[in-house]
Amino acid sequence: MGTIIRNAHPIGASLADTNLRFEDGRIAALNPLQDPSQTSDTVIDGAGKLAIPGFINAHTHLAMVLFRGLADDVPLQVWLEDHIWPLEQQLQPEDVYWCSLLGIAEGIRSGTTTFVDMYFHNEQIARAVEESGVRALLAYGMIASSLQDRGRSELAKTESLVQNWHGRANGRIQISVSPHAVYTCGEEVIRAAVDMAHKYGTTLHTHVSETRSEVDEWKAKTGMTPVEYLQSLDVFSVPTLAAHCVHVDADDIGILAAHPVTVAHCPKSNAKLGSGIAPVHAMHQSGVSVAIGTDGAASNNRLDIVEELRACWMLQRASHENPAYMSSTQVISMAVRAARGLVGLPEDGFSEGAPADVVLFDTNHVHTTPPHDAEAMLAYAVNSRDVTDVYVDGKALLKNGELRTIDEERVISEVRRLLHRLKNR
Amino acid sequence: MGTIIRNAHPIGASLADTNLRFEDGRIAALNPLQDPSQTSDTVIDGAGKLAIPGFINAHTHLAMVLFRGLADDVPLQVWLEDHIWPLEQQLQPEDVYWCSLLGIAEGIRSGTTTFVDMYFHNEQIARAVEESGVRALLAYGMIASSLQDRGRSELAKTESLVQNWHGRANGRIQISVSPHAVYTCGEEVIRAAVDMAHKYGTTLHTHVSETRSEVDEWKAKTGMTPVEYLQSLDVFSVPTLAAHCVHVDADDIGILAAHPVTVAHCPKSNAKLGSGIAPVHAMHQSGVSVAIGTDGAASNNRLDIVEELRACWMLQRASHENPAYMSSTQVISMAVRAARGLVGLPEDGFSEGAPADVVLFDTNHVHTTPPHDAEAMLAYAVNSRDVTDVYVDGKALLKNGELRTIDEERVISEVRRLLHRLKNR
Repeated sequence: MGTIIRNAHPIGASLADTNLRFEDGRIAALNPLQDPSQTSDTVIDGAGKLAIPGFINAHTHLAMVLFRGLADDVPLQVWLEDHIWPLEQQLQPEDVYWCSLLGIAEGIRSGTTTFVDMYFHNEQIARAVEESGVRALLAYGMIASSLQDRGRSELAKTESLVQNWHGRANGRIQISVSPHAVYTCGEEVIRAAVDMAHKYGTTLHTHVSETRSEVDEWKAKTGMTPVEYLQSLDVFSVPTLAAHCVHVDADDIGILAAHPVTVAHCPKSNAKLGSGIAPVHAMHQSGVSVAIGTDGAASNNRLDIVEELRACWMLQRASHENPAYMSSTQVISMAVRAARGLVGLPEDGFSEGAPADVVLFDTNHVHTTPPHDAEAMLAYAVNSRDVTDVYVDGKALLKNGELRTIDEERVISEVRRLLHRLKNR
Repeated sequence: MGTIIRNAHPIGASLADTNLRFEDGRIAALNPLQDPSQTSDTVIDGAGKLAIPGFINAHTHLAMVLFRGLADDVPLQVWLEDHIWPLEQQLQPEDVYWCSLLGIAEGIRSGTTTFVDMYFHNEQIARAVEESGVRALLAYGMIASSLQDRGRSELAKTESLVQNWHGRANGRIQISVSPHAVYTCGEEVIRAAVDMAHKYGTTLHTHVSETRSEVDEWKAKTGMTPVEYLQSLDVFSVPTLAAHCVHVDADDIGILAAHPVTVAHCPKSNAKLGSGIAPVHAMHQSGVSVAIGTDGAASNNRLDIVEELRACWMLQRASHENPAYMSSTQVISMAVRAARGLVGLPEDGFSEGAPADVVLFDTNHVHTTPPHDAEAMLAYAVNSRDVTDVYVDGKALLKNGELRTIDEERVISEVRRLLHRLKNR
């Protein structure tokens, strides 16, 4: 017995409304011929709803929802040193569990089915992912200047994570090896990380060229841009998630395009922190695969891919004074499709045999009236709270606007209590 | 007998929660001393809610919601000539009524209490404003090369609108005199518009320096920027709403700052059409009053001021690579306060005697957890669908998420039917 979503409008598929059938966690058929009323399947009415195979949030730090709205309008160093770090150092493993669950709840509610995360206490994040039913590619962000100075223990933590969690929960959980950035990891640490990724067949996740000063300082120190430096260490021999890539030049873009790199463009975070505007149009022109991420909520302050779609086309079109940059099709593809390969999903989410990840948006609202074009509606008009239903591996995580796997009230109250405890130590 | 909103958190006021009492359409008291349970007032529970005196959408074309999502990703001229104009020419007065109501419904649902509109068939827009209970400053966008060529009849339409509607509906409806732009109105038409505004004591509403080509062509033609040209015609002797001002230079900014001009910054529309990024930070530094508008839904595609707040800080911070540009306090002030004088409202919306315009946002959501800072929450985290209650002149237009003055289903169905009729002629 399966499930049929009847008469929904799949984005990127034909213009006609479609019946989408899934069974045993997989897409079984598109437009199944049988009359839904004649089957023993559960039938969901998708009329007036848009369907996507789920957004992939390609770069985030889920648990940082705890710091949402904490000292937003102060300079970066003050923010880190006086506000974020003192609180972050006090976080217990259990705290990271509750905060990650809150971030996952926010993501599900805004249509995200897969999270690419980098943080610490990752076992607790994996536990939140396993229980909530979403899909995630998790990483422990290693920070170590050399193998002797922290490096060996950081690598050991990563190896234990890979051994214990990679492929768990029916494959919903995967682990990346993650040197945090060129400026926080010594050369031998990065080399060892590449070796570990090859050994276990994992992907790699790192921050690349987020700010102008990072690039300037790296060039002064090594004569190379961070991208050139990472290539010199053979990092891109591993399928890599490169977060940010705001300040990449034409040579860097050539390197990214020539290797199995997925860039996680984080337009809102880059804007909020004043980092700049990534050359997304130029990367697309050169064939770089560019996905979309939120970064952590502390620099956003949301984990909402609908907002990122908007931010992406706005920043590209406005800064280049060109309305032809970033069509609705392009931004949707960045959010839905670009990172699917990296996280091990088939390119087309609505193909037979693909995991049954489905998100429905209700479009019976004033702000989505009249209905002209489904892709334009998703890129330009829907509100993330229009999401009504979310399935991952065929299991309902959100149904008619109600979370099914997360006790939302408890999570909100646990995170509020945690903040109170940290602030009153 | 009045109404008390109990324990809401007013933005921009003290940090403590507040009881807000209104009676006969006016704010009667902040933190009234009497125990709400001891009065005969209606008591609304505002706990966990943010309160603002309502967003002002400082530049829009309400009825253009009809064209939301119509041919978004084509060049501007193709869009206008092949798509928008042919449909717009077929619009009947009644059509503009239904489309305006849809736009007003979208605005109310996202926290807007006042609309500054420019369109045609304005009597129908005024009717929609009167019935729905919102506040509006309406304008007929005059297009005429000279007094003889259309000018006299355009001015007569405006004069009739002023005589019939200015100050109506308990002052909720006001009329601006509106030469559409320098490039669509001849000099003598603009001069006559200024005279009419002085005669009736109205404001003036026009498009200014929206695109680079507009400014370049105007300089080539007259030796002046559009701002300099408007000043040479004494336009700024009238309190003026100048929409866009994307391509204004330091001299232009000096002129705007020295006169009673309110700029309507429309960041999303300027981005979507590739017009560019207005120098909002520089205008603020020079003391120009800058408000926020959505422009028409056809170039946005929403009438949602929460999205404009986000767009505003993102575009300024990202393009200048400076996280100190556009604090939460600044963008909120642009959306809530900057245009109040222009529309005849006292500067502080929550002062005794001010019209009782109040909007409540529910913050009991995962995406607004944890609560750190109320202004940061509004600027960076709330979703426009978090709006639960909207009052104008003390009357509930939205209550617990339900529209009270607009038959939403009917409006949606009328606009869908209209689109079907226009497309199948």
